[in-house]
Amino acid sequence: MAPRKQREIFDATLRLVAERGYDGLTVEGVAERSGVNKTTIYRWWPSKAALLGAALVESDVLGFTVPDTGSLRGDLVALVEGVRRLLTEPPGSDIAVAALAAAVRHPELDGRRFFADRFARERAVFERAARRGELPGSADPLLIMDLLAGAVWMRAVLRGMKVGDDFATQAVALVLDGVHRPG
Amino acid sequence: MAPRKQREIFDATLRLVAERGYDGLTVEGVAERSGVNKTTIYRWWPSKAALLGAALVESDVLGFTVPDTGSLRGDLVALVEGVRRLLTEPPGSDIAVAALAAAVRHPELDGRRFFADRFARERAVFERAARRGELPGSADPLLIMDLLAGAVWMRAVLRGMKVGDDFATQAVALVLDGVHRPG
Repeated sequence: MAPRKQREIFDATLRLVAERGYDGLTVEGVAERSGVNKTTIYRWWPSKAALLGAALVESDVLGFTVPDTGSLRGDLVALVEGVRRLLTEPPGSDIAVAALAAAVRHPELDGRRFFADRFARERAVFERAARRGELPGSADPLLIMDLLAGAVWMRAVLRGMKVGDDFATQAVALVLDGVHRPG
Repeated sequence: MAPRKQREIFDATLRLVAERGYDGLTVEGVAERSGVNKTTIYRWWPSKAALLGAALVESDVLGFTVPDTGSLRGDLVALVEGVRRLLTEPPGSDIAVAALAAAVRHPELDGRRFFADRFARERAVFERAARRGELPGSADPLLIMDLLAGAVWMRAVLRGMKVGDDFATQAVALVLDGVHRPG
C-alpha cells in the first residue's frame, strides 16, 4: 500500500477512536473517512483491533523518551510528567485514554504488552539509580511505577480532575520520602 | 414496580455488563433476559446508563466499609485490600471494571461522583490518623489515595497482572515510609 494512503487510513482510525471511543470505531467508518475501500483495509488489517494497534505504533502517540536527568528524583518526575501529558493533553490524550480503556476488555489490543514494553524501558531509570547508590536493594521498581502512573490515571481519568503542574513533584516526593518524611 | 421484578431487571443488567461490557449492554438485552417488556423498563429508567447506575447502587457491588483498625497503616492496608477485592474477585470485579472503564467515556454513568463519594468516606481514616498524631499536617490524603488505589488499578486492570496477597502491605509501606526508609 502507498505510504500516503496508509497514513490517511491511520489518521482516520485515530481521529475516529478519539471522537467515538473504541466501540464507536468501525472499519466501515475508517473506509468512509479515508476514502479507501473497506475490503482493501481488511486485506491489510484483519480486524479493527489490528488496525488500531498498527495506527498506534505508527503514530507514536503512546511513545515516550526515557529520561536521564542525573537523579532518581528528576527521572521519576520526568516519567510522571510524561504520563500526565499522555493522559491529559488532547488530541493525544483522547486517543490514549480510549485505547487504554478499551484494552481492558479487548485482549487483542494487547494492552499488557504495551505496559510490559514500557516498563522494560523504564527499568533503565532504576538501574542507573541503583548504580548511583540512590536506590536500596529492597526497592521494587514495578511497585514504584504502579503507584506513580496509577496516581495519574486515577486523578486524571477516573476522578476526571485537573492534574496540577506540581502533581509530578509531589507524587514523587511522597513515594521517595514517605508520609513520615524527616524534618 | 414489584420489588421482585425490579431485582430481576437489576440482576440481568449486572450479568449483561459483566459478560459483554458496557457497550454490549442494551435495554433490549435486559428485557429479553429478565422477561420484562422493554417499554416498561424505559418507563422507569430513561437510558441504559440510568439503569446500570440504579443497579449498581442497589447491588452495593461498589460499596465498601470504612476500616477502623486503630492505626493509619492498618486502615490503609484494609482500604487497599478492599480495592484489590473489588477489582480482582469475580463476578463483582467483572461488573466493577466494566462500569468504571465505561464511566471514563460515558459521563452519564457519573464515575466522578462515585469517586468523590468514596473519598468523602475515606477521609475519616485520615482524620482519625491526624488526631492520633500519625499524620503530619502537610500530608495530602487525596494524593495518598490516588497512589494506592491507582496502583491496584494499574497492576490488576491495566497490566492484567496478579495482585499478590502482600501487595496492600507493600504498597502502603512504600507510601508511608518512602523508598529511602530508615534502617
